[in-house]
Amino acid sequence: MNDIELKDGERVNQLFSSDIKIIQNREVFSYSIDSVLLSRFPKLPNRGLIVDLCAGNGAVGLFASTRTKATIVGVEIQERLADMAERSIQLNGLSDRMSMITDDLKNLPHHFPGSKIDLILCNPPYFKVDEHSNLNESPHYLLARHEITTNLDQICQVAQRTLKSNGRLVMVHRPDRFLDIIETMIRYNLAPKRIQFVYPKVHKDANMLLIEAIKDGSQDGLKILPPLFIHEEDGSYTPEIHEIYYGN
Amino acid sequence: MNDIELKDGERVNQLFSSDIKIIQNREVFSYSIDSVLLSRFPKLPNRGLIVDLCAGNGAVGLFASTRTKATIVGVEIQERLADMAERSIQLNGLSDRMSMITDDLKNLPHHFPGSKIDLILCNPPYFKVDEHSNLNESPHYLLARHEITTNLDQICQVAQRTLKSNGRLVMVHRPDRFLDIIETMIRYNLAPKRIQFVYPKVHKDANMLLIEAIKDGSQDGLKILPPLFIHEEDGSYTPEIHEIYYGN
Repeated sequence: MNDIELKDGERVNQLFSSDIKIIQNREVFSYSIDSVLLSRFPKLPNRGLIVDLCAGNGAVGLFASTRTKATIVGVEIQERLADMAERSIQLNGLSDRMSMITDDLKNLPHHFPGSKIDLILCNPPYFKVDEHSNLNESPHYLLARHEITTNLDQICQVAQRTLKSNGRLVMVHRPDRFLDIIETMIRYNLAPKRIQFVYPKVHKDANMLLIEAIKDGSQDGLKILPPLFIHEEDGSYTPEIHEIYYGN
Repeated sequence: MNDIELKDGERVNQLFSSDIKIIQNREVFSYSIDSVLLSRFPKLPNRGLIVDLCAGNGAVGLFASTRTKATIVGVEIQERLADMAERSIQLNGLSDRMSMITDDLKNLPHHFPGSKIDLILCNPPYFKVDEHSNLNESPHYLLARHEITTNLDQICQVAQRTLKSNGRLVMVHRPDRFLDIIETMIRYNLAPKRIQFVYPKVHKDANMLLIEAIKDGSQDGLKILPPLFIHEEDGSYTPEIHEIYYGN
């Protein structure tokens, strides 16, 4: 194992179903189930270029790395988080095909001019900035959760400019933003093709959605995949989620 | 029981969970589970005016009649079907608060000028007319299934013109038309607020959706309701559907 420096407050987490180790810091940023589900939702291309936008501490790209040999590039505006991701990449011996760009995602076309990206993964800030935004949150969480440094419009615009024709944008988001998501994707000619709703329990409303859109695709043929439930009635994980976290 | 004439090929069906009797004719038109689920999806206003568009043999309005004291008007362009619905209304002794209009739904604003309708229910034709349309189908089914005499755009336009402010349009439709539905509703300022996806079985893609939109509502606050499954793995009805068909 590579010898990687851990900074104050950091620990190494491992998803038991994989060998991936991830440097976390609860004060700054921890990945959540959203990232795990996002990384597993699309069929990944086995070569070419995958970009993880709003990469945070790199969890989505790190999880995805176990299922593809493609090059994976994370883009994160917050230096502190990108630095954690960099060290996790080293820790997992993935430096030959995984790297981070510490920049605003709106600059992605400068890093990858032309339309070269096969797949964009994105776990974006979920919340609009409004009077309900708690601006007393830790600044790291604040930027990760609220549309302060980026927003849906910018993400879709950048995806349209940098994806190959028929390249895919895959996002995790909240159902209460669903209409925005659909409208924005269609406005940038990203055609939603696969949607899965995630429910905390069987008789609850959905609290998460996974969506995959194809650049310049036709608007026909949308599929609503089987629902995914996180918890059983007694609060334990459903078999699907248990397998994702702990393996078979 | 009222003495109602049955015509050639007609029989009377009863949903065991209610006392409603419905005149059907398999050669011409039979209601399906879509109508049953549509009638149960919205909270119905207990007074005022409910209109059932694309009413067919009146099943949606007849089922809804057990859950409201509102006036219910069905609109059906096909005389043969509207006639079946008329006789079912008599058969159930509902003539005092339920009636049919045999007309193209685009004329609804002439029948109800101003914006007076509280709720519109609609089980519309699901399929676009294209080279795959089987024009050899029975003409009654053809019109009921394909967007020949009406389409999403017209339904939403008519709903916008005839609903009260904050009145609701509730539809059952197919997931592969979902993007069209959302786009068209938004274009006519009908804000989707509640969506439920219906799955034939647990691990299958959705094959039906129920959607409720509010006239001139805000685009915030969309809810994705718990999924509804029709069949168990062994093909029997799930408890939810069994209850709907057979009662407790």
